Amino acid sequence: MTNPQSPSTSVGASRLPNPGQGPLKALVFDAYGTLFDVYSVTSLCEQLFPGNGMALAVMWRTKQLQYSLLHSMMNRYKDFWQVTQDGLVYSAHALKLDLTADKRTRLMDAYMTLAAFPDVKPGLQQLKSMGLHLAVLSNGEPKMLQAATKSAGIADLLDAVISVDEVKVFKPNPRVYELASTHLKTPKASVGFVSSNNWDVNGAGSAGLATFWIQRAAAEPAEELGYPAAHVVHLLTDLPALVR
Amino acid sequence: MTNPQSPSTSVGASRLPNPGQGPLKALVFDAYGTLFDVYSVTSLCEQLFPGNGMALAVMWRTKQLQYSLLHSMMNRYKDFWQVTQDGLVYSAHALKLDLTADKRTRLMDAYMTLAAFPDVKPGLQQLKSMGLHLAVLSNGEPKMLQAATKSAGIADLLDAVISVDEVKVFKPNPRVYELASTHLKTPKASVGFVSSNNWDVNGAGSAGLATFWIQRAAAEPAEELGYPAAHVVHLLTDLPALVR
Repeated sequence: MTNPQSPSTSVGASRLPNPGQGPLKALVFDAYGTLFDVYSVTSLCEQLFPGNGMALAVMWRTKQLQYSLLHSMMNRYKDFWQVTQDGLVYSAHALKLDLTADKRTRLMDAYMTLAAFPDVKPGLQQLKSMGLHLAVLSNGEPKMLQAATKSAGIADLLDAVISVDEVKVFKPNPRVYELASTHLKTPKASVGFVSSNNWDVNGAGSAGLATFWIQRAAAEPAEELGYPAAHVVHLLTDLPALVR
Repeated sequence: MTNPQSPSTSVGASRLPNPGQGPLKALVFDAYGTLFDVYSVTSLCEQLFPGNGMALAVMWRTKQLQYSLLHSMMNRYKDFWQVTQDGLVYSAHALKLDLTADKRTRLMDAYMTLAAFPDVKPGLQQLKSMGLHLAVLSNGEPKMLQAATKSAGIADLLDAVISVDEVKVFKPNPRVYELASTHLKTPKASVGFVSSNNWDVNGAGSAGLATFWIQRAAAEPAEELGYPAAHVVHLLTDLPALVR
């Protein structure tokens, strides 16, 4: 049995652990931070704003997430492309950087082709070969997700690319996580949700999915939100061992 | 006419500017960050965790706000006392600080008696003497708000202390801002909302209130959320000049 919130990469279970609910038939993945490295834009940030690349990349990501929550709370949904751009504009103001229209366009374009983490493609390939249905469930706007999955060479491995855009509210609202079961025509109890964002894991757990946290930074603590991950791994390639 | 989002402390208007909607009858204030200095706990943080006081105070405040948004989005409301404590526990983990039960209690108790900013009491006194109804509208849990307003010596100046607790959802949800008009028995068009938190200003503006941003840090940029402040000042004591 995997110990919740404690990394365990070598569980010898004979199937994906989903206590009392039978085997999992599908795994659904968060996109940004989980499959795609949002900090792969850091080098372009640094090239455009020498000495401020890391600060800009970190604040940009923070504001992007905060704005997605605030817009949802205000009942004023704006798609993730807009929210991402607004986060960039704010961050440039806050850091006193001159974000010209050209620089803004180059940075936003970089978001369409973020690098995938190196464990993503081999991890998905192994899971696919085991007969699992695989999908993405993301805050991303549909065109952003199509571009990023194609650019990363993983589009053919996915049975569905699901965007919050169809319910016009962002994660961690339960309506978002319910989309996974609907799109894959699979009961909720047979769907596992995988994310590197621990707040996202809590949201999916609160909505009733079996959750897997990919703890990419070893020292990162879990959020105090009440719905801890059922399983914790470090890489996507650790997941097949939980099924084998 | 005050220029939205541009500080203006010397507008010679003959009444509180509320274009096309008649004079304001009530002013409603955010509490944490606006009336009460959430960073007045920094010295205790530093005393308990030498060298980490500022880092802890900043992360604590950030997580407190983030958790209020995440709980609301998950439809899992927890009151602000709990959310504040959870934010403290997470921040201590993240900074690798040994938060004993005693230290946790001392820090949480400090939140009951946060210092008011020096402009708060004189500002409220002047506005009260002008015949305006004054109230607090806050994410705070009712007991926290009662303790803080009493400790700051401003309880007698307030006609109402309104907590989100009665609607079980946090700012910036529009249901929160609608409480102001209901409690004060004053039409929404006659209620002005004052906050130092620019995201809160945007939320109130989106909900239809006339908004005043107290920009306490001169370099702080406005959020890119679509509902900028109608008026920007630096201190509570700048508000009476907008009415006189």
